[in-house]
Amino acid sequence: MISEKMKKIMSSGSAIRAMFEEGKRLAAIYGKENVYDFSLGNPSVPAPKKIGEELKRVIDETDPLALHGYMTNNGFSSTRKAVADNLNKRYGSSYGEDNIVMTVGAAGGLNVALKAIINEGDEVIVIAPYFGEYDNYISNAGGVSVVVPPNPPTFLPNTEAFEKCFTPKTRAVIINTPNNPTGVVYDEYTLKVMSKIMARKSDEYGNTIYLISDEPYRELIYSDEPAPFVANHYDNTIVGYSFSKSLSLPGERIGYLAISDRAEGSKELIAACGVATRILGFVNAPSLQQLAVEKCLDEKTDIEAYDKNRRLLYSALKEYGFECVRPDGAFYLFVKCPIEEKDFVEEAKKLNILIVGGSSFGCEGYVRIAYCVSHDMIRSALPAFEKLAKEVFSK
Amino acid sequence: MISEKMKKIMSSGSAIRAMFEEGKRLAAIYGKENVYDFSLGNPSVPAPKKIGEELKRVIDETDPLALHGYMTNNGFSSTRKAVADNLNKRYGSSYGEDNIVMTVGAAGGLNVALKAIINEGDEVIVIAPYFGEYDNYISNAGGVSVVVPPNPPTFLPNTEAFEKCFTPKTRAVIINTPNNPTGVVYDEYTLKVMSKIMARKSDEYGNTIYLISDEPYRELIYSDEPAPFVANHYDNTIVGYSFSKSLSLPGERIGYLAISDRAEGSKELIAACGVATRILGFVNAPSLQQLAVEKCLDEKTDIEAYDKNRRLLYSALKEYGFECVRPDGAFYLFVKCPIEEKDFVEEAKKLNILIVGGSSFGCEGYVRIAYCVSHDMIRSALPAFEKLAKEVFSK
Repeated sequence: MISEKMKKIMSSGSAIRAMFEEGKRLAAIYGKENVYDFSLGNPSVPAPKKIGEELKRVIDETDPLALHGYMTNNGFSSTRKAVADNLNKRYGSSYGEDNIVMTVGAAGGLNVALKAIINEGDEVIVIAPYFGEYDNYISNAGGVSVVVPPNPPTFLPNTEAFEKCFTPKTRAVIINTPNNPTGVVYDEYTLKVMSKIMARKSDEYGNTIYLISDEPYRELIYSDEPAPFVANHYDNTIVGYSFSKSLSLPGERIGYLAISDRAEGSKELIAACGVATRILGFVNAPSLQQLAVEKCLDEKTDIEAYDKNRRLLYSALKEYGFECVRPDGAFYLFVKCPIEEKDFVEEAKKLNILIVGGSSFGCEGYVRIAYCVSHDMIRSALPAFEKLAKEVFSK
Repeated sequence: MISEKMKKIMSSGSAIRAMFEEGKRLAAIYGKENVYDFSLGNPSVPAPKKIGEELKRVIDETDPLALHGYMTNNGFSSTRKAVADNLNKRYGSSYGEDNIVMTVGAAGGLNVALKAIINEGDEVIVIAPYFGEYDNYISNAGGVSVVVPPNPPTFLPNTEAFEKCFTPKTRAVIINTPNNPTGVVYDEYTLKVMSKIMARKSDEYGNTIYLISDEPYRELIYSDEPAPFVANHYDNTIVGYSFSKSLSLPGERIGYLAISDRAEGSKELIAACGVATRILGFVNAPSLQQLAVEKCLDEKTDIEAYDKNRRLLYSALKEYGFECVRPDGAFYLFVKCPIEEKDFVEEAKKLNILIVGGSSFGCEGYVRIAYCVSHDMIRSALPAFEKLAKEVFSK
């Protein structure tokens, strides 16, 4: 009864979402406190108080017709201006309100950007490990994923392997730094080398290659230095941003695309993104959330809470003998499986530890642990992880 | 720099949205009170007070992690149950929470439903005049629109012409009653005949044909009888609903799909819609709005206000000599052009009357007037309409 494409997608499924549903099932059986659900990137730090205050203020002070009505597909002018100004203040960029398209989260934004630029059969380069949903987004727009193989143990892109992935059909590259699932933050040098390759390949093939920078974790950084702002390194960058992690609003579906005037064909591209927002059925980003986040752009999530989790879990796992890249951002640990990935995920599940196999991220033989959970849960889970280590290392 | 498909869509454009933007431009020049913008279906009746109250209550009383976090892609269980119960109470249906998928408006829902069922090249029947965006939604999923010609002056579907549109590739039919752009409400008899044809064609081709019933105007009815509930007439119905018009929340992007257990392959179909919600980048319907609308399902919009507009404008236009079907629902008048459609739209614009040509709805030679505006604006616009009549009828 359903389409062939959908059947295929459903049979491969989303291991992340399946594990999230499994967690809810197990919690009903064993009690929530006895299930260690590390499956989903659902923030454990509540939204800043100001979000709730601003939502209520906007409801009280705004004419409901303006508040809940249609606006230009690209979003409220005031919201777009606030976002542009905030980016400029933080990164020395020069966005104006016309460079911003408000979107239904970053997932919505990525679909919009791909719809705007991809012709049937165009290739989009992704760098493993990567959020597996990119494959679906690319396919939605008629494109084909080309995967740069993973580069352990640093998981920074291997730029030689990257360069080899380009063909005359390459239309875009998607990167995600700080990275899901590794937590790795791409350094300035790597971004520079990648930018040079993309510029050279654009010239070589006479074909503008856009960089789609998926940045929901931009502010989730565990060092004093902010992560490099990708768009400062490559003119043809389409920034895809979400407030899901930085303001803990994943269920609200609010984010934006930012496209600089320096991007080739920027005016037409931005207009196309507005049209794609409309025809894909998003129509516009949720209006109330637009008006609330525009007043909360300087709000920060409680990065200390995630850092506390990161330190505890990372050091414990290392102590138990696991290999893992030390994450500098996001809220994931990417751990090498001492046994077959599938068996490792199963063994963990027997101990009520829910984690997602690296295969879902184009990187077999690893697991992702989303440590955006309560600190208490990590404490409670440590004996189970220790037990897991004993079991798998004795095999 | 943008895709070929997008270039084509942009060159044909959305006349509705273009006129909406034009209205904002003209208002800046001539003053808002001197521009008669009848372009967009943006409700002029504010959201019921209870919406604002419930939004604030939910913000105050809900743990922000639950309120703003991810939930199952199909939506909050409590919201889905409330929607199902409300439908059952009103229409004697038997939906459960598992039959409901919360969506990013009806536009999001229609894209989700089409993605779930359409194979490349499948045909989807639409009945002119129809919301032109359906063509894009169908194309997004790889399908092809097949158009039943318009049937003036009643604009009820010509069921013989309808029957002739079916082929072995027909996968779905989209209907929209009360109708945008005509305001016509399909009667029970018409729905019965259409259902029989769809059932017969499903049998003939051995291919389940789904009816996608786009119902944002379901409650906008100007008689004492509610509009027939389409799903009661055909088991394989996918209801696409939006709270945009009934609760005046178009900017918030909140709606749902309802699929009965009686639909063939219902379980798989509902699961596919959840997956489509995820992979198309919607992920889920905005969380705060889900929890607010679940408490406002018995709220009603101020139908009297629209009715007052309808009566005044309809009788005035008839008096000036225009031909027009008397609408029983929605908030549109569909008026026959006394001169070439394009010229008529232009002549109207010279008088600061903004209306959309019927070509945008697959029905050349008409214009749509969206009377979801203030009553004062209609009063002020009448002399301009009268002048327009004098000009065009003297040609």
